[in-house]
Amino acid sequence: MHSVGICGSDVHYWQHGRIGDFVVKDPMVLGHEASGTVVKVGSGVTHLKPGDRVAIEPGVPREMDEFCKTGRYNLSPTIFFCATPPDNGNLCRYYKHSASYCYKLPDNVTFEEGALIEPLSVGIHACKRAGVTLGSKVFVSGSGPIGLVNVLVAKMMGAAAVVITDLSASRLQKAKEMGADFTIQVKNETPQEVASKVESLLGCMPEITVECTGVQACIQAGIYATRSGGTLVLVGLGPDMVTVPIVNAAVREVDIRGIFRYCNTWPVAIALLASKRINVKPLVTHRFPLEKALEAFKTTKRGEGVKVMLKCDPSDHNP
Amino acid sequence: MHSVGICGSDVHYWQHGRIGDFVVKDPMVLGHEASGTVVKVGSGVTHLKPGDRVAIEPGVPREMDEFCKTGRYNLSPTIFFCATPPDNGNLCRYYKHSASYCYKLPDNVTFEEGALIEPLSVGIHACKRAGVTLGSKVFVSGSGPIGLVNVLVAKMMGAAAVVITDLSASRLQKAKEMGADFTIQVKNETPQEVASKVESLLGCMPEITVECTGVQACIQAGIYATRSGGTLVLVGLGPDMVTVPIVNAAVREVDIRGIFRYCNTWPVAIALLASKRINVKPLVTHRFPLEKALEAFKTTKRGEGVKVMLKCDPSDHNP
Amino acid sequence: MHSVGICGSDVHYWQHGRIGDFVVKDPMVLGHEASGTVVKVGSGVTHLKPGDRVAIEPGVPREMDEFCKTGRYNLSPTIFFCATPPDNGNLCRYYKHSASYCYKLPDNVTFEEGALIEPLSVGIHACKRAGVTLGSKVFVSGSGPIGLVNVLVAKMMGAAAVVITDLSASRLQKAKEMGADFTIQVKNETPQEVASKVESLLGCMPEITVECTGVQACIQAGIYATRSGGTLVLVGLGPDMVTVPIVNAAVREVDIRGIFRYCNTWPVAIALLASKRINVKPLVTHRFPLEKALEAFKTTKRGEGVKVMLKCDPSDHNP
Amino acid sequence: MHSVGICGSDVHYWQHGRIGDFVVKDPMVLGHEASGTVVKVGSGVTHLKPGDRVAIEPGVPREMDEFCKTGRYNLSPTIFFCATPPDNGNLCRYYKHSASYCYKLPDNVTFEEGALIEPLSVGIHACKRAGVTLGSKVFVSGSGPIGLVNVLVAKMMGAAAVVITDLSASRLQKAKEMGADFTIQVKNETPQEVASKVESLLGCMPEITVECTGVQACIQAGIYATRSGGTLVLVGLGPDMVTVPIVNAAVREVDIRGIFRYCNTWPVAIALLASKRINVKPLVTHRFPLEKALEAFKTTKRGEGVKVMLKCDPSDHNP
Repeated sequence: MHSVGICGSDVHYWQHGRIGDFVVKDPMVLGHEASGTVVKVGSGVTHLKPGDRVAIEPGVPREMDEFCKTGRYNLSPTIFFCATPPDNGNLCRYYKHSASYCYKLPDNVTFEEGALIEPLSVGIHACKRAGVTLGSKVFVSGSGPIGLVNVLVAKMMGAAAVVITDLSASRLQKAKEMGADFTIQVKNETPQEVASKVESLLGCMPEITVECTGVQACIQAGIYATRSGGTLVLVGLGPDMVTVPIVNAAVREVDIRGIFRYCNTWPVAIALLASKRINVKPLVTHRFPLEKALEAFKTTKRGEGVKVMLKCDPSDHNP
Repeated sequence: MHSVGICGSDVHYWQHGRIGDFVVKDPMVLGHEASGTVVKVGSGVTHLKPGDRVAIEPGVPREMDEFCKTGRYNLSPTIFFCATPPDNGNLCRYYKHSASYCYKLPDNVTFEEGALIEPLSVGIHACKRAGVTLGSKVFVSGSGPIGLVNVLVAKMMGAAAVVITDLSASRLQKAKEMGADFTIQVKNETPQEVASKVESLLGCMPEITVECTGVQACIQAGIYATRSGGTLVLVGLGPDMVTVPIVNAAVREVDIRGIFRYCNTWPVAIALLASKRINVKPLVTHRFPLEKALEAFKTTKRGEGVKVMLKCDPSDHNP
Repeated sequence: MHSVGICGSDVHYWQHGRIGDFVVKDPMVLGHEASGTVVKVGSGVTHLKPGDRVAIEPGVPREMDEFCKTGRYNLSPTIFFCATPPDNGNLCRYYKHSASYCYKLPDNVTFEEGALIEPLSVGIHACKRAGVTLGSKVFVSGSGPIGLVNVLVAKMMGAAAVVITDLSASRLQKAKEMGADFTIQVKNETPQEVASKVESLLGCMPEITVECTGVQACIQAGIYATRSGGTLVLVGLGPDMVTVPIVNAAVREVDIRGIFRYCNTWPVAIALLASKRINVKPLVTHRFPLEKALEAFKTTKRGEGVKVMLKCDPSDHNP
Repeated sequence: MHSVGICGSDVHYWQHGRIGDFVVKDPMVLGHEASGTVVKVGSGVTHLKPGDRVAIEPGVPREMDEFCKTGRYNLSPTIFFCATPPDNGNLCRYYKHSASYCYKLPDNVTFEEGALIEPLSVGIHACKRAGVTLGSKVFVSGSGPIGLVNVLVAKMMGAAAVVITDLSASRLQKAKEMGADFTIQVKNETPQEVASKVESLLGCMPEITVECTGVQACIQAGIYATRSGGTLVLVGLGPDMVTVPIVNAAVREVDIRGIFRYCNTWPVAIALLASKRINVKPLVTHRFPLEKALEAFKTTKRGEGVKVMLKCDPSDHNP
């Protein structure tokens, strides 16, 4: 393994030992945003050979069930997934993974770009499910790492304008650097007031809202803000039950769609990174050697920077 | 005009003078499920002539706005709609309507079938938005007139099995006659228990749920019941705000989609009625001459039967 | 194995030893329309057990490539496919197949219905690719076994009217029995004349044409016949190069789509057969025990009847 | 009127008096790539007022027929279209047009950008019908003005790489400047050889081919080049009948889709131009005052430059 990013879920398992129904019962290796170098392949593998640099898609279906057969393998209930108990992750020196889910990196794509395909994939899957297309006006709610990748991806897909909200001015500043056209620093506005500011900045209601906070008031704002016939995608996860203006969404045919991880995103991301059409490098703000993993996790927990990267190869700490 | 069906919304305007933000301020003619005979056409009309029997689509866009141009004219905010204040309906003897929204009935389709295209259209639009297709397993929540047309339409679109719920045994009996494969008489089950019964009867979770009650507990059941990757369509409207297990829907990529009336359904319905592929006649349980409209409305208000039809042509009270 | 239908391609390999680039170089077992009883399962199989009656999907992808991951596994270039050289088919007594592509038959579905899922799947895949939906007007070109299943499936998906053409009056009679609304016995009409007859019978141009002959003049007729904005699906295969009125199709936005076998059709077909919503039994016109395979192949070669079924289980020759 | 671009079809009507079945029988004003300033509006118009700068969509449906109602108004057979006989174009000083098809230009969008929305729309419609999306590999066949706008639009929609072909090195140079990643100067290669070069440059077969020449050999190359499951869009129009390897396309499920003009593209284009996300200005290579229209047409006929712009406002010849 070469570079592994730390995700909020890694920190959550470390601190709380569970996320919802997923409970850590035995020691578990963390890490699922990863890239490395092939050292050995099985006898049937033809698309990879030792020495190849690869990005690793952490979810590998175990069965060819109806979800796999229809191209939505992320929904397969028996899927293996790195660092979701009881499945081990890849924050370590050596790791074994299904070759079909290891993707060769072109020479002009770095290991860290390879590892960042994982968070980027959340944005790709969200924007695809949202139907972002040429000329879309997009409202991204929340300016954390996932909000930022959604800004990047929405613009890449031809969005004409993106407005983003957050509590933090510095996060909004980062969003601006990543391509957001407008920012709104929310304080104590009502959901309707947020929706109204979004419309005012865009000059129209957005066809698409990507909600990345999971906060009830933000989901409500997402519904009010989205244009009739548009789509609200729920990326952030909050409490199990939320109170929402469902009639407002229903009679305006605003679709509400969630996402679960991603599928079919690695080849897309690699093609974009190879053609230098997307720049994810600014997302990495901290790097630590694997030996200093504890420090790295503490940094992430404190919410410093955007993405903390662990360097697993003692002989190469380059990006 | 020949035959005009009474809808729950007609009764509601009659009793309460308003539905949500739509308030009756001046006298208004009710009625929007209608068919009649052309007596006169404008000079530019070529597809109709006096004597033609027609079904009337009640919604007529007033502007060629973005919604019209993209084929979703039902979402046009300035649309004319029969019997939605301040627009008059067509429960009367003579009525003028945009020729583009009058559809000629073939000889083998009755006036009442023509009038029933309106409620049928709600089912067509809902099942199209739901993505019902060959082999679908469908859960219809609520066995009122709209639930029934969804059963009819879902089966027509190739659904392999439909299960329907209601409080009333007699309504479920009607659903069975209209083609429902399974019925569940709900009492005081939790939403999860309803979902579990649905799965048990179908032998699997339904890909599609069509919710026709608007009741919070039913929407919750609709989410729990729908298979990962499936769709919950909200047809029934209840309170503005509802509490729903949004994370459950989001992480299983169960889409939540509302419908607002319908668009592009009349030609579909006429083709089906003309080919005798669908039988809506059993929906009509009562008939009254226009002079006895009060009695007809009282019958509807009491919830008797399924569909009450008013006969507006004094010389022809045939179906 | 219990029942295996004979397909035109089986006869072609038997007579010519090749179809296009697929050449029989070594002895090969024929047969790919099959059903049987499980006698043994691998250790990881949980959804099947010995004694289960199953239908067999003949195509099994060998690699989890981009086509598999996106739900179009039929396009995977390395797929295993029964009776396509060099892969053996299942016209024999005992046969081993990937459990993921064996589908349990409900008690009320016969072995022969199970075997007929294969030709039915061609119709399901074609009609899905065509976008047949509620109220569609459909033109099926050619009334052989594949034309017939397309009639069946199109009607099941809600088509309002289906018109079918053929040279043979008896085949058209069969189509009528399977649900075709109109038939045209073609003689020496030009493609434009055929298109004109189709429009005349339907009362409008069909949105969808399913071409099952592969004959150049029929493909031309399919283009002329299809309504602007509609779809022509090519199911029948003829010569490599054909001359077609491509501008006529292009400027009317008539899409031309081929199909290659099928994917994701077995669960759909089983759900329909289990619910008794589709009747494929009339397709079987001849039965032979496996020992009389030669006679069965000769019968198929002579073009007698519709579907010839071989009975592989010496102890049970029931349907 | 302010700026009107000259299109190949304008030159064709000027020289030949007809295009296919469209014959110029009476004097006809040319021009359909236009922008200008509103001088007067009808009493019902609310979204425009005198003084507004507008871009003009040349096609205006005359009837609310099935194509309009379903959002594909470009296919309406009775549509009005500028400079398609017998309908007059807008290459003149004053012109009257349906307000619903006049789109207000933001202050930061020039008149010429407004006029260029028309050719840009061909690219938008083609790339939308092609399904270009994030990470697509695209093969554009032909590097004339329409090929160039397809390069621009495909990149805007997130294409990872675009390869373009032409006979002319200078046109390929222009394509490179507009964003093409790879160019192929074709000489006397066979269609299969062109397809092979495309695959070699992209590192894989393109999912999408946009054919802009109409030449038979190029359509053939487009089929051979496109990846299984992909789409070939026909934009260029050549002879009515062409000979194509239809089986090759069909069995690899390569869809063949034409385009007819465009629909719903002006709002998209204006949003992109307003946000400075797309630069069409380099397309304009020549400008002439309206008085020198003959010279302008001769320039276009000689094939000089890319786009020739006529300046209709004597008081303002700015872009």
